[in-house]
Amino acid sequence: MTAQFDSKGNLRHLLTLEGLSREALLQLLGRAGQIRDAAMGRVKRRGTLARVAVCTLFFEPSTRTRSSFQLAAQRLGADILNFDASTSSIRKGETALDTMRNIEAMGVRGFVVRHPDDQIVERLAEAAGEGTALVNAGDGRNAHPTQGLLDMMTLRQAKGADFSQLKVLIVGDVKHSRVARSDLHALRILGVGQIRVCGPANLLPEDDVLQGCQVGQDFDEMLEGVDALILLRLQRERMEEGLVRSLDDYHARYGLNADRLRRAAPNAAVLHPGPINRGVEITDDVADGPQSWILRQVANGVAVRMAVLETLLT
Amino acid sequence: MTAQFDSKGNLRHLLTLEGLSREALLQLLGRAGQIRDAAMGRVKRRGTLARVAVCTLFFEPSTRTRSSFQLAAQRLGADILNFDASTSSIRKGETALDTMRNIEAMGVRGFVVRHPDDQIVERLAEAAGEGTALVNAGDGRNAHPTQGLLDMMTLRQAKGADFSQLKVLIVGDVKHSRVARSDLHALRILGVGQIRVCGPANLLPEDDVLQGCQVGQDFDEMLEGVDALILLRLQRERMEEGLVRSLDDYHARYGLNADRLRRAAPNAAVLHPGPINRGVEITDDVADGPQSWILRQVANGVAVRMAVLETLLT
Amino acid sequence: MTAQFDSKGNLRHLLTLEGLSREALLQLLGRAGQIRDAAMGRVKRRGTLARVAVCTLFFEPSTRTRSSFQLAAQRLGADILNFDASTSSIRKGETALDTMRNIEAMGVRGFVVRHPDDQIVERLAEAAGEGTALVNAGDGRNAHPTQGLLDMMTLRQAKGADFSQLKVLIVGDVKHSRVARSDLHALRILGVGQIRVCGPANLLPEDDVLQGCQVGQDFDEMLEGVDALILLRLQRERMEEGLVRSLDDYHARYGLNADRLRRAAPNAAVLHPGPINRGVEITDDVADGPQSWILRQVANGVAVRMAVLETLLT
Repeated sequence: MTAQFDSKGNLRHLLTLEGLSREALLQLLGRAGQIRDAAMGRVKRRGTLARVAVCTLFFEPSTRTRSSFQLAAQRLGADILNFDASTSSIRKGETALDTMRNIEAMGVRGFVVRHPDDQIVERLAEAAGEGTALVNAGDGRNAHPTQGLLDMMTLRQAKGADFSQLKVLIVGDVKHSRVARSDLHALRILGVGQIRVCGPANLLPEDDVLQGCQVGQDFDEMLEGVDALILLRLQRERMEEGLVRSLDDYHARYGLNADRLRRAAPNAAVLHPGPINRGVEITDDVADGPQSWILRQVANGVAVRMAVLETLLT
Repeated sequence: MTAQFDSKGNLRHLLTLEGLSREALLQLLGRAGQIRDAAMGRVKRRGTLARVAVCTLFFEPSTRTRSSFQLAAQRLGADILNFDASTSSIRKGETALDTMRNIEAMGVRGFVVRHPDDQIVERLAEAAGEGTALVNAGDGRNAHPTQGLLDMMTLRQAKGADFSQLKVLIVGDVKHSRVARSDLHALRILGVGQIRVCGPANLLPEDDVLQGCQVGQDFDEMLEGVDALILLRLQRERMEEGLVRSLDDYHARYGLNADRLRRAAPNAAVLHPGPINRGVEITDDVADGPQSWILRQVANGVAVRMAVLETLLT
Repeated sequence: MTAQFDSKGNLRHLLTLEGLSREALLQLLGRAGQIRDAAMGRVKRRGTLARVAVCTLFFEPSTRTRSSFQLAAQRLGADILNFDASTSSIRKGETALDTMRNIEAMGVRGFVVRHPDDQIVERLAEAAGEGTALVNAGDGRNAHPTQGLLDMMTLRQAKGADFSQLKVLIVGDVKHSRVARSDLHALRILGVGQIRVCGPANLLPEDDVLQGCQVGQDFDEMLEGVDALILLRLQRERMEEGLVRSLDDYHARYGLNADRLRRAAPNAAVLHPGPINRGVEITDDVADGPQSWILRQVANGVAVRMAVLETLLT
């Protein structure tokens, strides 16, 4: 994807982490870190986007991600327009492109776009006018770059800035996960020591996604000695599609509990993009326990999104 | 409920009016009065909640109550996040507690929560982090404390600050009404002279709710000489449940019209939490007549909610 | 409609363009032009409505029009309340009037109202309290005055301020179109040289709407030498109602393509209120071509709405 860079190679949109330089990625993380530090954990309002209008343009509902972006934009002083494209004229047959161009014509400069398809967000970015910036808030199975960034920010807080010796395990429905794809891109860019991927055979993705990863189906085995785990949400559709036999069966094979967690390195960090299915991907004691970084991921998400919006729009 | 006080006995959340001291209740009313007076009826914007994010977290839809809180928070300068929990990841199986904790992790400090169940809001308050404040915007049949406060504010405007000689009648579906419960708490705390409760037998609540009240089923009789009436909204579900024969029948027995109103004391005040069912609980001439305080209740609602948010969050 | 003027003849609400003086209409256009010029195309934030609360009260969904008004109000510094009256207590049986009065009692001063019926918005305006202003954002088939204004603003940009020599053609479902009615009012007030109206016989309106217009069913014929075309959106309901045989048939007879456009005057301006049905009212090459003013209409819409809100509320 090249639509995200301008002719000088600067970041113009954030569509994917793939192809980002290590330097660009660290700059975004650095800015996010400053934003959080500046207020010792609490993020203060900044006026950097005063007079700028930002639209959350969601072609697929996601109250939580939208809220995170909305709070990020508000704290930068931006005006927010929440445009729910699943209940709008889209349904009257208007194309996604016409919808974006219209809102753009209304003077909106930043778009936070979620779409169920893999390629629409990039096409929107290609068609965007000068001065307009897009942030991909999740498109199909393709990418969810701000989630990838916030996961990296959280890993750095948990394990330090040197990733070269780290072993990180991604567990679950990797096949359908844009989070996993963005995490894999970021982990490779940051030169993580070892990436392991684990899940049922029919939920593992094509080989090119797994390049350079250790892949396995036995969770207990893959857990041995890892420094961090990224659990993926199990979508209930997978059961209806017959890809997962039952939630109980999934939990027995891939659910993280305290016993299993002891196989990982001491003080291994547990991450999950949320919302968590308690008793499916994770037990209560682990989700709410001292090794869980799940709520810190959420907090970091706002800082990361502030950093991205500020970078693209100022 | 003790979750609403901190270790020093200060109000930390507003979950119910039950157990509030007379002094605490009068302080909230006093602040609300100042807010309205300050602008001679019109409430001006204040900056007291600038940089504070407030979330309306509604697990049950209520555009009107949400709007009142939103306008209150806006006028204090807060950033608002409207989180409709009936269309969000809640439906994907996330618990109310996880939803609140997530939004809290995003940096939101104030939560205005509505929930169809009786006990969830208190549990959320118990689980809330330090510095987070909850306002109960109605939970099940349990409580709707800001409605209770705005009713008291309105009664004071109508009848003066000395409640000791007042006779107040609450009419309708008291059994299912959180408004009635909060009003009853407030009227007792303020030492109102006489509380009467009136409604069909199967819409009257348990005895402990009615402690110290004069209770009857004959509206005309109960009306004699009262200084104020609080009519309750008749939910249409009551008919489907067979608790009310028909709207016409209800109106014949418990509908307030100009004739009936003459049985009350001269210039008796008529209150209703809204939205009103015209021709059911009340006739047009009374709803729109000189003894109706219904729209002033709405106006007072914004001032009361500003006072509550400011008290809890500054 | 007289509800829109106060006793001194000043504009108090904007309900329709009918009956507006040429001077009043030009003043609104002038202010909108200043707002756009002030920022050389980009509209800057102004503080003229700081501390004023504006409510978009939509009894019929329209994300796009609501968004345009919301951005306009935000850029004037107003507080916005989006009240979706199709999912609120309206459904519990409350009247539109009670809904408006309630929000008014909450301190909202400006209402942007859309309603599926022809007469409700005017009735709401008649009932509004002193200091409250309404803008009609489209009511039934009756009027959509800000669309009329933005169309005039666009025509002036395209064709200059002297309308006396202009030939303007309105094409499509004029019968059901509030846009057409408001455009016709405005074109007459501005003294346009010639108004032509074209569409299938069963989609042409009553005679009084067409007063002074040249009317025909043959699109090619009516196109000859026009300086500007206003295409109307074809609602898909018209097919279900049997008023249009098929989209293909409609396109063959009334769809604008590059060939047809050559019949018009050189550089004729093409307008459409959106959202466009590509391949029905218009082909891609015309919609996205150099004679299309469609996106500039959208941009002008925000400026016009800012001008209207500022005029009514300051």
